[in-house]
Amino acid sequence: MVKVGVAGYGVIGQRLADGVALQQDMELVGIADLAPTLSIRALREKGMPYDLYLVDGADKAQFDRLSIPVKGSFADLIGKVDIMLDSSPGGVGARNKILYEKAGVRAIFQGGEKNSVADVFFHGYANYEKGLGVRYLKLTSCNTTGLIRSVDCLDRKYGVDRVAITIIRRVADPGDYHRGLTNALQIDKAPSHQAVDLMTIMPHIEATGILVHTPVTHGHIITVLAQGRKGRITREMALEAFRPHPRIRVVTLEEGFLGNASFFRYARDLGNPRGDMYEIGLWEDSIVESGDHIMYAINIPQESVTIPETMDAVRAALKMQPDSASATAETNRYLGMGKWRK
Amino acid sequence: MVKVGVAGYGVIGQRLADGVALQQDMELVGIADLAPTLSIRALREKGMPYDLYLVDGADKAQFDRLSIPVKGSFADLIGKVDIMLDSSPGGVGARNKILYEKAGVRAIFQGGEKNSVADVFFHGYANYEKGLGVRYLKLTSCNTTGLIRSVDCLDRKYGVDRVAITIIRRVADPGDYHRGLTNALQIDKAPSHQAVDLMTIMPHIEATGILVHTPVTHGHIITVLAQGRKGRITREMALEAFRPHPRIRVVTLEEGFLGNASFFRYARDLGNPRGDMYEIGLWEDSIVESGDHIMYAINIPQESVTIPETMDAVRAALKMQPDSASATAETNRYLGMGKWRK
Amino acid sequence: MVKVGVAGYGVIGQRLADGVALQQDMELVGIADLAPTLSIRALREKGMPYDLYLVDGADKAQFDRLSIPVKGSFADLIGKVDIMLDSSPGGVGARNKILYEKAGVRAIFQGGEKNSVADVFFHGYANYEKGLGVRYLKLTSCNTTGLIRSVDCLDRKYGVDRVAITIIRRVADPGDYHRGLTNALQIDKAPSHQAVDLMTIMPHIEATGILVHTPVTHGHIITVLAQGRKGRITREMALEAFRPHPRIRVVTLEEGFLGNASFFRYARDLGNPRGDMYEIGLWEDSIVESGDHIMYAINIPQESVTIPETMDAVRAALKMQPDSASATAETNRYLGMGKWRK
Amino acid sequence: MVKVGVAGYGVIGQRLADGVALQQDMELVGIADLAPTLSIRALREKGMPYDLYLVDGADKAQFDRLSIPVKGSFADLIGKVDIMLDSSPGGVGARNKILYEKAGVRAIFQGGEKNSVADVFFHGYANYEKGLGVRYLKLTSCNTTGLIRSVDCLDRKYGVDRVAITIIRRVADPGDYHRGLTNALQIDKAPSHQAVDLMTIMPHIEATGILVHTPVTHGHIITVLAQGRKGRITREMALEAFRPHPRIRVVTLEEGFLGNASFFRYARDLGNPRGDMYEIGLWEDSIVESGDHIMYAINIPQESVTIPETMDAVRAALKMQPDSASATAETNRYLGMGKWRK
Repeated sequence: MVKVGVAGYGVIGQRLADGVALQQDMELVGIADLAPTLSIRALREKGMPYDLYLVDGADKAQFDRLSIPVKGSFADLIGKVDIMLDSSPGGVGARNKILYEKAGVRAIFQGGEKNSVADVFFHGYANYEKGLGVRYLKLTSCNTTGLIRSVDCLDRKYGVDRVAITIIRRVADPGDYHRGLTNALQIDKAPSHQAVDLMTIMPHIEATGILVHTPVTHGHIITVLAQGRKGRITREMALEAFRPHPRIRVVTLEEGFLGNASFFRYARDLGNPRGDMYEIGLWEDSIVESGDHIMYAINIPQESVTIPETMDAVRAALKMQPDSASATAETNRYLGMGKWRK
Repeated sequence: MVKVGVAGYGVIGQRLADGVALQQDMELVGIADLAPTLSIRALREKGMPYDLYLVDGADKAQFDRLSIPVKGSFADLIGKVDIMLDSSPGGVGARNKILYEKAGVRAIFQGGEKNSVADVFFHGYANYEKGLGVRYLKLTSCNTTGLIRSVDCLDRKYGVDRVAITIIRRVADPGDYHRGLTNALQIDKAPSHQAVDLMTIMPHIEATGILVHTPVTHGHIITVLAQGRKGRITREMALEAFRPHPRIRVVTLEEGFLGNASFFRYARDLGNPRGDMYEIGLWEDSIVESGDHIMYAINIPQESVTIPETMDAVRAALKMQPDSASATAETNRYLGMGKWRK
Repeated sequence: MVKVGVAGYGVIGQRLADGVALQQDMELVGIADLAPTLSIRALREKGMPYDLYLVDGADKAQFDRLSIPVKGSFADLIGKVDIMLDSSPGGVGARNKILYEKAGVRAIFQGGEKNSVADVFFHGYANYEKGLGVRYLKLTSCNTTGLIRSVDCLDRKYGVDRVAITIIRRVADPGDYHRGLTNALQIDKAPSHQAVDLMTIMPHIEATGILVHTPVTHGHIITVLAQGRKGRITREMALEAFRPHPRIRVVTLEEGFLGNASFFRYARDLGNPRGDMYEIGLWEDSIVESGDHIMYAINIPQESVTIPETMDAVRAALKMQPDSASATAETNRYLGMGKWRK
Repeated sequence: MVKVGVAGYGVIGQRLADGVALQQDMELVGIADLAPTLSIRALREKGMPYDLYLVDGADKAQFDRLSIPVKGSFADLIGKVDIMLDSSPGGVGARNKILYEKAGVRAIFQGGEKNSVADVFFHGYANYEKGLGVRYLKLTSCNTTGLIRSVDCLDRKYGVDRVAITIIRRVADPGDYHRGLTNALQIDKAPSHQAVDLMTIMPHIEATGILVHTPVTHGHIITVLAQGRKGRITREMALEAFRPHPRIRVVTLEEGFLGNASFFRYARDLGNPRGDMYEIGLWEDSIVESGDHIMYAINIPQESVTIPETMDAVRAALKMQPDSASATAETNRYLGMGKWRK
């Protein structure tokens, strides 16, 4: 049993902890945080299913007053684990790395950290083998993770040369009050970092793209234009590749998937914890051909999409499985991915 | 065991079904709907925990093609139950009532139906006794249900004469695409129906109010100004009344409850199915005194707030408990309400 | 002096009327509408700068009660003009056409009508000559009008073979209450009609695209990927084409044009009536190359963007100028387009 | 002719400059700002109708590169005026005051500054006489300005004892990208500062209130509950007071004023510069009686509502008129207020 800790129990950290708890070959030792946030208060109300450790700077007396049990210090947690999943606020992960190095503990960082924090920039499907046995990995961001899933899926089967994307980005998560945008679409300098990141992970592909922020909370939508390496990828070929992928859910407007909020609605109705969905959505109705290009749109559930690939990263860093196929299969099995097809 | 059916498996119907399933003295016989909506597809993906019956006009072949098992017709369902919870789209309930009457089955309608569909307009706390043994009850709407909880709570303890409300209404539910409002606040003719409805349920109180629609999905906020019957209700008195109420969650900004979306975020983090919350929220920081009035703000989780009072209505209609105190205690126990305080 | 009437004094009709009033070789005879809308009431408050005619079905007594002077009937207006600009609600234009035919009057319809209403589907730059002397023209919709401006601009100079677009569509205009979308991105079946329409107007180009609705009011954003016919169009080449275009405003993030709302803010600060802008915006920072493709993002001010091309259409239908170059030059001069560069 | 300067050419500063330019007994000497913002660039594109002075820290070379003519330094501007209208970002006004004092120049600060910056906290109707001859005045904020207009209007005619308000606050202005809120209603600690400020200006009234932020840009809505001093104020009495007020526009839903965005739409259609409106809106349909209270809802156009009262403040500070009645009459005349009734 691989022992895992989670640093930072926010939007991503909570989901990482839940994800680890579902992996039958991993043990969640505990989570670490700084303050009694709403999420920590919810943990207490649920009866502390996960042990809580406090990072430096935390005021333990405040937790005591709120009757939130504390298991130990951040150093205590690090001392008990084989690997840390670091989902601290951007920049804090780099500081934590010093502690991990001192303790000789491996770590996986999330997209908010700089690439330099890690030895390998990682995606479970596109470059698993590069992560094998590596001490410090950094996951691709939510958009890049989902985007690469779909591009890698076409690339494996048909070869892909070139990709141009438009990211229609949600600007905040449900419950955020400080990252808003009101009645505006905001544009970033092109190319978007997601296109650049894709090229880092898949260097044989040329990518570019434009990102536009929108005032919504339930998932990014990305349109992807991909050029086949060996000639035209048809609509039928694309569907044949996408449909069996355990982390891609092909849907239609006719079923009722009218936009990003439909996935959230559906995941809530499924009873998924927090209304989360690990799969990206892909609209069958969006797939169109143009010359030797194929174009399609995907939905990225930003809060939960990186969880499977982070589980893959644990498997790579600790050499639990030798290749992407066997590693992603284990992750998928424990997370119940692809089950919906049966 | 009281046998219960649910007509209309939409936003409210799903939650009614879940609510009934949690009541240990009720049995959910099944749910009825017309089309394979996203919610019905989610039911299938979950393995059909509830039996599905089809209302007249449904195309059974469509369900067969999607491998969604159908247990029988709407008439079959009605024939098996003691009482129907009708959460069909507005107006359909009145048509369904004819079937219920023919079958000699009781029914509880939701706020979207006209008052005339029912013998009594019902709230579990404010007029439970009026519903005892009555064949057709109609629940108050989501805003009115939550509003009355708070006003009844003050009224029981201190007496309330007069109420003036401002309803800051969410305009759609998560996943809605056809009820939007974009960058606008829309105002209705005053007085709002919620103020009028409050007077119907609590005729000893004079109420008025103004309603403004806002482009958000996570809960209405109502500000309430209440005048004590026997003199000033102080902030401390109000808190003393609100705090122990099992269906009111008193919160603070300092804890992190910054607005309506915080309740949704918290309920998701709690792992509540669909991120639902049965309690209304009440901000301690919003309570202010003014002359002989007390003013406060509450949060109404529109998708789930009426579920407890509907369970109370089943208890009243079937005389399962003789009074509000014993009935609401049973409902609360099975729904786990008030548990968070311990 | 060409005599022009406007049918339908809504969002587009008001701007058409203002646009005609600015053309020194056209005379606005009057506008026609059905009811005393806010826009008609504003016209009265301004002292009736335009004469009002009532369409069939209007209740003249209602206008009298509000002291809104009425000049005559719709037939009266039609009888006085050479050409009607029809911006009635979708579908009404087709009915009005019968009246225009009877009176032997030409007409130009807006994008909401079906293509079959007109003899030619028109754009002032891309196919002016096809509209010469034609009795019934239909303008491209707002998105298509702006899109074609930019594609035609590249096509004239360098040749364009293929275009793939992503339309990030605003869902309502400021002041709309019935076309909303709340916290959701909604996707349409691909290809979007704008891509199809572009191919109708510019049949030598292959186009496809995906459209996503967003809950904002201040302008659509379109990302365009274009492939040069004679090889790569570089960033510098694209800028060289776009910069001098009188209906394209090339801007940068550094100036403060951070998104669609910046154009609206800027046009208000300019003192433009209604905060309107006739130009599309084009972000210099969005232009990126990818293989032999060029990608860029444009902003479409949906309320006003079709006005110049509609003026061009009047010129074509009445053969006021023999070609696109001379016609658009006149329109641009009277609308003050391109003035900002000096 | 009174000589006036404006410091800070942002949302408020632009409108103050326009307001001064309309007062026939005032002369706008110039405006001062720090950077070539979009608003300054728009000023240049309009041909510099107002002279520009640069505050300390501005990079003149940057303005030169953009061919934006600069008239002089901030000190130069201060040296030429009788009074400065300071609409700098919050906190900067207090620093500027040192310069004003040194130059012996009067100043009027906007709501973003602390009360301590000024000798009198000012409203043109409610306490004009307190501002007579005073060197440093601070205007009430946009919400408080509009709120007091309506309360003062009732108070003058009938007497008002007590007020309870709910502020449904827009969170950003059109064109803002950094003050957003996405799909959430956010609540502030009660009582809201506007209620407290009202009591500072009108000390004979007891006021309290709750403020909720909403993700929209086109105007705040405030519901007001007011208690008459000498008994019940009826709906008819309230209308009799509100209707003739030159700074209150009484409207109805039936006319088409469905919410805050309708005022913006109407002002754009009127051709008002920037789509601004100086009046508050008051919905006739919102007025309801409750016991001895009257309740109503008003709309606050946040960008422009304080302009008239700031003109009044100039009149008070420089003793241009001896009392509120004569001063507001002058302001109203030059701004064209109340004209719409004729």
